[in-house]
Amino acid sequence: MDRTPTMTTTPQDVRRVACVGAGVIGGGWVAHFLARGYDVTAWDPAPDAEPRLRRLVEAAWPALTRLGLAEGASQDRLTVTATLEEAVADAEFVQESAPEKLELKRDLLAKLDAATPAGTVIASSTSGYPMTDMQTGAATPGRLVVGHPFNPPYLIPLVEVVGGERTDADAVAWASRFYEAAGKSVITMKSEVPGFIANRLQEALWREALHMVANGEATVQEIDDSITEGPGLRWAFMGPMLTFALAGGEGGMAHMLDHFGPSLKSPWTRLEAPELDKKLYDAVVAGCDEEAAGRTIADLVAERDQGVIDVLRATGRLPHRREEAK
Amino acid sequence: MDRTPTMTTTPQDVRRVACVGAGVIGGGWVAHFLARGYDVTAWDPAPDAEPRLRRLVEAAWPALTRLGLAEGASQDRLTVTATLEEAVADAEFVQESAPEKLELKRDLLAKLDAATPAGTVIASSTSGYPMTDMQTGAATPGRLVVGHPFNPPYLIPLVEVVGGERTDADAVAWASRFYEAAGKSVITMKSEVPGFIANRLQEALWREALHMVANGEATVQEIDDSITEGPGLRWAFMGPMLTFALAGGEGGMAHMLDHFGPSLKSPWTRLEAPELDKKLYDAVVAGCDEEAAGRTIADLVAERDQGVIDVLRATGRLPHRREEAK
Repeated sequence: MDRTPTMTTTPQDVRRVACVGAGVIGGGWVAHFLARGYDVTAWDPAPDAEPRLRRLVEAAWPALTRLGLAEGASQDRLTVTATLEEAVADAEFVQESAPEKLELKRDLLAKLDAATPAGTVIASSTSGYPMTDMQTGAATPGRLVVGHPFNPPYLIPLVEVVGGERTDADAVAWASRFYEAAGKSVITMKSEVPGFIANRLQEALWREALHMVANGEATVQEIDDSITEGPGLRWAFMGPMLTFALAGGEGGMAHMLDHFGPSLKSPWTRLEAPELDKKLYDAVVAGCDEEAAGRTIADLVAERDQGVIDVLRATGRLPHRREEAK
Repeated sequence: MDRTPTMTTTPQDVRRVACVGAGVIGGGWVAHFLARGYDVTAWDPAPDAEPRLRRLVEAAWPALTRLGLAEGASQDRLTVTATLEEAVADAEFVQESAPEKLELKRDLLAKLDAATPAGTVIASSTSGYPMTDMQTGAATPGRLVVGHPFNPPYLIPLVEVVGGERTDADAVAWASRFYEAAGKSVITMKSEVPGFIANRLQEALWREALHMVANGEATVQEIDDSITEGPGLRWAFMGPMLTFALAGGEGGMAHMLDHFGPSLKSPWTRLEAPELDKKLYDAVVAGCDEEAAGRTIADLVAERDQGVIDVLRATGRLPHRREEAK
């Protein structure tokens, strides 16, 4: 097993970040790291990369200013370099956000590995490739991790962190701590699965939506409205599992599975359902209990209700009223 | 074709609503209609139905009060009846929310149809059965529609309205106008598809989540966190289609499909993808353009950014900051 030299910088002390690839996602990372007060170097092979990147950062800056910039944060602390090697030469962390092509990512990560100081973790923004498949060309693959963000990386907190077969556990742990220090919300996955977690869920929804458009069952507008006026309001603060538990009334997830479990057999989507055997039933019920962490169903209902009201109010969509509140 | 007598009350003039079935969904409807100032009669065969229903309405009332009650709205305007017939005898609109069993719904809708005054629309809260399959026992099926809400019906705006093969188009149109007058956000579907729109999307996500739990790929908590810290923040105000369009950068949905279309072939979910042929490609791109309604990608990015900030702030989850904003 290749060994990474011990990480040279502690996650909290990182000051210099390199972003390689500066499209929508890479540029979003640049904006995020700048707003959090890092010095950022960026490189992208496209001829118009620099003006496009600076435009993206400038467009994001008002939002980031409203959120609150870290002390000393400035767009001036971005340096766009002419070569990949210059971008990573002094980097204490590298974020790769190249196009989603396996061969390209494999080659690029090998090059980055060769050019980046030993002891610096290199993370890939890949939307779904396992690091095991991407790290095959690198001399020191132990420091290569996936750090998968959501668009825009400067606003959506989630980063999914996972290593490949040849990644050191230390590098995964370091990356998770670094992202947390950089203001992100981290899920550290124990095993690789293509698409990670959120993209698998998004992709299921996306494919079903495409089927509906293809069959003329719903328009793009109706699909979007069905989410923003419906389940999407809850999902901004309570995930689908706990939300479904509340459909079971005072009986929670167990009652919900008893009641709606049979609809797993219904043709409500083109996705085949798993067998809802005792093991899965128990795992889902226990998982919800664990997540509820002592909150009763009534507590969760009150939280959900307040959350929906907050979200409706915040997005200017309180339900239509005949009368204003007295 | 059976004809429904012309609706006797205009949608805006309805004052008396009957709710049949008073579990989580039926009870949520009761709370909604009471808060909007209707007189509500309710019936449910369960022996403890009335105390459970009154508890549910009482638990929802603080949230409804914060949202703003309609003039004269009161929990005292709820009457729980001993029989189904009494509940619907004077109703100007009937909402059926019985357990999700096809035979039961079919029989109940036939009974409701027999007991409800002519010219009153009867809507079913079914989560997924087509009305065509439920209306077969009714003498006047023309007034039977689906009015599918989301939990909790007193807060989530969406109602999906669709008729069956024997439903009059007038009844569908009347129901949509009534729900709008009652403060709901309505999608009127042109054709029946099992699960309607939002539940097909939810179900795809739910099945993929169950597969992940079954395979030990993610915990219930991780699944929920991956949504609330990730895509769920955007979906509270911008649907998945328009959100994905922004992943295409300045090129929008067309660029997104060029870039990420190939990942439809990736094993990112167990759901088979449709063929992304020219027809589907064009429909998705045109649908996004139509939904954008003249807003540029830059406009949409600015809206999304403000929306995410509003949602984060409203739900007390501004990203961690090292410094407060100056």
